[in-house]
Amino acid sequence: MLYVVGLGLGDAKDITVKGLEIVKRAKHVYLEAYTSILTVGKDVLEQFYGREVIVADREMVEQDSDKILEEAEDEDVAFLVVGDPFGATTHTDLILRAKEKNIQFRVIHNASIMNAVACCGLQLYNFGKTISVVFWTDTWRPDSFFDGIIKNREHGLHTLCLLDIKVKEQSIENLIKGRKIYEPPQYMTVSLAATQLMEVITNRKSAGTNNLAVTEDTLCVGLARVGSDDQKIVATTLREMQKVDLGSPLHSLVITGDMHPLELDMLKLYGAASSDP
Amino acid sequence: MLYVVGLGLGDAKDITVKGLEIVKRAKHVYLEAYTSILTVGKDVLEQFYGREVIVADREMVEQDSDKILEEAEDEDVAFLVVGDPFGATTHTDLILRAKEKNIQFRVIHNASIMNAVACCGLQLYNFGKTISVVFWTDTWRPDSFFDGIIKNREHGLHTLCLLDIKVKEQSIENLIKGRKIYEPPQYMTVSLAATQLMEVITNRKSAGTNNLAVTEDTLCVGLARVGSDDQKIVATTLREMQKVDLGSPLHSLVITGDMHPLELDMLKLYGAASSDP
Repeated sequence: MLYVVGLGLGDAKDITVKGLEIVKRAKHVYLEAYTSILTVGKDVLEQFYGREVIVADREMVEQDSDKILEEAEDEDVAFLVVGDPFGATTHTDLILRAKEKNIQFRVIHNASIMNAVACCGLQLYNFGKTISVVFWTDTWRPDSFFDGIIKNREHGLHTLCLLDIKVKEQSIENLIKGRKIYEPPQYMTVSLAATQLMEVITNRKSAGTNNLAVTEDTLCVGLARVGSDDQKIVATTLREMQKVDLGSPLHSLVITGDMHPLELDMLKLYGAASSDP
Repeated sequence: MLYVVGLGLGDAKDITVKGLEIVKRAKHVYLEAYTSILTVGKDVLEQFYGREVIVADREMVEQDSDKILEEAEDEDVAFLVVGDPFGATTHTDLILRAKEKNIQFRVIHNASIMNAVACCGLQLYNFGKTISVVFWTDTWRPDSFFDGIIKNREHGLHTLCLLDIKVKEQSIENLIKGRKIYEPPQYMTVSLAATQLMEVITNRKSAGTNNLAVTEDTLCVGLARVGSDDQKIVATTLREMQKVDLGSPLHSLVITGDMHPLELDMLKLYGAASSDP
């Protein structure tokens, strides 16, 4: 049996009781380690579970998943995923392949940023489509995500922006030379995300677009380490968000839409001014 | 300290390890019991926790929340919520009032239908605004939720429809006579939701609206008891969904938008035909 177990968002104890029982009795325990992270590392998980945990990076999941699935044919295999198992397409793919091979699977759900984001006080049913903000390079500066935010705003909806993660990436030089040397992991901050967004706004204005539905003064919410003891939430304008330092990863950014009074009351706890639009 | 603890969606063991530790040591344990339900009752929870659980219905939470908050001033109080604590506005309100009274609070997140719905294979970032479908009566048949679905479809997005729950409601006669006699709880089925939706489509067509973005042939997904051992998922057209029996509550319905091939592959596991639009 293949168990795909969500770990939630904070630390080792955010696993469910059901999930922990599975981890304790499974023959092999894999930890998916490239779409998200907990506030604790593999060593803390191993100590808490009393089990060896095999870190499965993107390469392993994409190349060796047949091995994982084969093991699951006769034995219990736990595949651990930060957040909820269905947060990333990769895990859906693993489940589809298990189904194809007639391997039984079971999913243990948990919190993910997709529902826990409501901790800032914005109601989930007032969110539109979720978008992703990727790290820009000198030559690659995509801005299509901005149109997603605009569409949501035009319908009065909030937008959850998932911020980019770069784990186990190779420099172009190392890639060309075939050297398996990896760059240190990078996690986008709300400050950088806000800066990229501000640049898109400036560009659109220069190109003659007026009355943008998102401006420098739009109320935004920055969230860091949601669900952990030192979770941080700041509500302020997009312009000010550029200067906000929320500390270590992971960060997420919300661009607000129309505000219900109860939502604004909650955001005031995190610094929003009454006059914020 | 006020702990608002998410219980997840299935049974007693879907609480997190962190949540269970809090329940075991809290002075009082309340269970919010009107916005959602688990597949097990209060007695099973009490046995699993080894603790007395006080069921808090709508009346109690709205009228006696001061008492709960007062208790939390000096002692640890656990307020248990099915799904995630921020799934319903009521809980945000409780947290706001705790903050006003300077009572410390802590939230323990968990899965809710808002993220677990992705278990059917539809990707969360392809969902638009979530809508609610209420029980119609002979004289009250609101259909504004339909416009939300239409808007999502026009942008190619899926729509999660939360289906109505009626718990501890009084008949008009008992209400008038001031008798505290309550009707049996009612949980909307995907079949009834589909029937109401079909009626809206018929009405709109009669009123002359052509080219509706949602039709009898739109591919829908019915989900029941997500996260539990006997979870059921069926993918079929809206017309056919009227005849689908998914058994005991809770049910949710998804109206699909544009389909990614991987999403359609998953839905085929649950009965969707390749030709479904």
